[in-house]
Amino acid sequence: MRKAISAIALLACHVAAPAPQPAPSNVRGGEYPTIDADRRVTFRVKAPNAKRVAVAGRAEDSGMNGNKPYEMTRGENGVWTVTTDPVRPGFHYYELIIDGWHCNDPASESYFGWGQQTSGLEVPDPNFDFDEAKDVAHGEVRSHYYRSQVTGAIRWAFVYTPPNYDHNPKQRYPVLYLQHGAGESERGWTAQGRANFILDNLLAAGKAKPMIIVMENGYATKAGQTPVAGSRDNGAFEELMVRDLVPLVDSNYRTLADRKHRAVAGLSMGAGQALQIGLGHLDLFDSIAAFSGGGRNFDPKISFGGIFADPVAANRRIRLLWLGCGKEDAGYASGKGFHEALTAASIKHVWVEGPGSHEWQVWRKHLFDLAPRLFQE
Amino acid sequence: MRKAISAIALLACHVAAPAPQPAPSNVRGGEYPTIDADRRVTFRVKAPNAKRVAVAGRAEDSGMNGNKPYEMTRGENGVWTVTTDPVRPGFHYYELIIDGWHCNDPASESYFGWGQQTSGLEVPDPNFDFDEAKDVAHGEVRSHYYRSQVTGAIRWAFVYTPPNYDHNPKQRYPVLYLQHGAGESERGWTAQGRANFILDNLLAAGKAKPMIIVMENGYATKAGQTPVAGSRDNGAFEELMVRDLVPLVDSNYRTLADRKHRAVAGLSMGAGQALQIGLGHLDLFDSIAAFSGGGRNFDPKISFGGIFADPVAANRRIRLLWLGCGKEDAGYASGKGFHEALTAASIKHVWVEGPGSHEWQVWRKHLFDLAPRLFQE
Repeated sequence: MRKAISAIALLACHVAAPAPQPAPSNVRGGEYPTIDADRRVTFRVKAPNAKRVAVAGRAEDSGMNGNKPYEMTRGENGVWTVTTDPVRPGFHYYELIIDGWHCNDPASESYFGWGQQTSGLEVPDPNFDFDEAKDVAHGEVRSHYYRSQVTGAIRWAFVYTPPNYDHNPKQRYPVLYLQHGAGESERGWTAQGRANFILDNLLAAGKAKPMIIVMENGYATKAGQTPVAGSRDNGAFEELMVRDLVPLVDSNYRTLADRKHRAVAGLSMGAGQALQIGLGHLDLFDSIAAFSGGGRNFDPKISFGGIFADPVAANRRIRLLWLGCGKEDAGYASGKGFHEALTAASIKHVWVEGPGSHEWQVWRKHLFDLAPRLFQE
Repeated sequence: MRKAISAIALLACHVAAPAPQPAPSNVRGGEYPTIDADRRVTFRVKAPNAKRVAVAGRAEDSGMNGNKPYEMTRGENGVWTVTTDPVRPGFHYYELIIDGWHCNDPASESYFGWGQQTSGLEVPDPNFDFDEAKDVAHGEVRSHYYRSQVTGAIRWAFVYTPPNYDHNPKQRYPVLYLQHGAGESERGWTAQGRANFILDNLLAAGKAKPMIIVMENGYATKAGQTPVAGSRDNGAFEELMVRDLVPLVDSNYRTLADRKHRAVAGLSMGAGQALQIGLGHLDLFDSIAAFSGGGRNFDPKISFGGIFADPVAANRRIRLLWLGCGKEDAGYASGKGFHEALTAASIKHVWVEGPGSHEWQVWRKHLFDLAPRLFQE
């Protein structure tokens, strides 16, 4: 009998699930939220005066049960907790709801999204680590400040310079301009998207050409004009990119300053901007990528100034047109329609679809797919 | 009569106060909080379900009435507002209190302070603009990622490179290591402190030597050890700076890699670290600055390993020892005591006292005073 118990005890020990781990998005040293082996997340909030506390993803298609709140349970000392169902890997914006007030969770880092600082939850993916900070050479992410001729204001671009940029002073590099989505900012592609680590890892594996990545804020209002609430004012951003940003980057970084070495990509709102700016300025860009957006109501004869009306000329002029979308994205049908219309019009392009919704985990994969295709001779 | 009215109308027009302006710390495009000509701040929160809403500075000595809450008044559609008394210029951490729940204001940017993301209010100072982003050449602020031998983790330093660093590939620069305070992070000196703009402006005026500034996270736990809650674990950070950071900076940036061209400074907790690390490693640093902290219970015979026991030798060895404190700082008496004990012991040093409490506006002024004194032959 003793032997049998011993064997069971050993077995139990052997199969015990690892302890829940703090999420990578917790503030420094924070214990909660935790994520268990099945990716159930436990949230914990001290709110002694609250009558009702819940936690919810910010989006209808969030990987943590959409935006359906999880009601939290009050324990000792006014500490409320809840453990969710398994959560999809990736980055999820979320909020606490305390007696009806929607707010950030002080336990997590906040990220600029939804037009404000918003709590984020990072759930590691068991299937890949191409976006993790690893023991490879790292590029830098630089804040580069400048006065915009278009907006009249001082702004800054985030600029990724590849590993050893400073150690190779003769080398020149191609440039990818990479835009965030609506409600986000120039910080999105590094803080939420991990673009720098994705490139570090691709470069360490020899899978992409060393490149500079420029990330700016996709919102701009012309000098002297009042921003219109809710307006994306994309015309001003297009002008800013052409008049301010491309010349600034070419004069401050060791770029290969021609269209063959310049690409523009973006996600969601940024996908529309990448198509608008890239296809509208083929003298500046020869590769264009739209992640989960753009191309709605596409008509090859007239859209984008009619450049697709002559497919042979367009295929000659555009080196790479890359489109992708998650199958659970509300814009999937529209994206796929764009892809099919391009195919029907004999326009060469890449179409990548896969799991996921309108979320950063999809866009990380998009960048991971796109970057190796860029600037290949 | 018509003429008189006309004159009064003109006069009224002439003396009308300028309209309240959005605070510089508002999220992109946000109208509130506003600041009027007398620096009264109007906060606005939509919280239809709330019974009681207030706004308060985070610290007892905050420039917005300490941490005494301003009760807000409910208006139409559940929008609550309050206008404060005149607020002291500078940067103030603050919070909303909604039915007893302390939380961030979605209308403002958040900043890492108090061990979490915390709302910040920036109130422009009518008396100076040395910390503003102006039309001068700007340095870059770079995130530099590395694996720490001491902590075992991947970390990053924020590195300010002065204007035209990339355009002067033969020039080498001295380095200032600059630390934040307790509860803050490597982001503090740029996001809250505007260190980069302060240096840009000093350099444009020819008032400081071009220098690199390195800002790291002052919290560190040795590999294999568990962080102790509330512990500053300064020993590990000292080791990290000596073993990891200084060699990393000297091998990745064009530094003048000797003690004559290396200074260390910090605020509050970082002041203690600057004294401990600087005075403990005079082989590495010859200039040391403590902003609003450090030197408590100083005894010239035994403190800091007894290096001040021989004042002549200490004065020869230390090029600059800089101390400063705001007169409204709770640590003012302690700081002044350190200064007086140094004076009594014939230790050369600079002591700067002035208005203000334990707050960023004081530390901006400290950096503005310190930087021109550094690295002078």
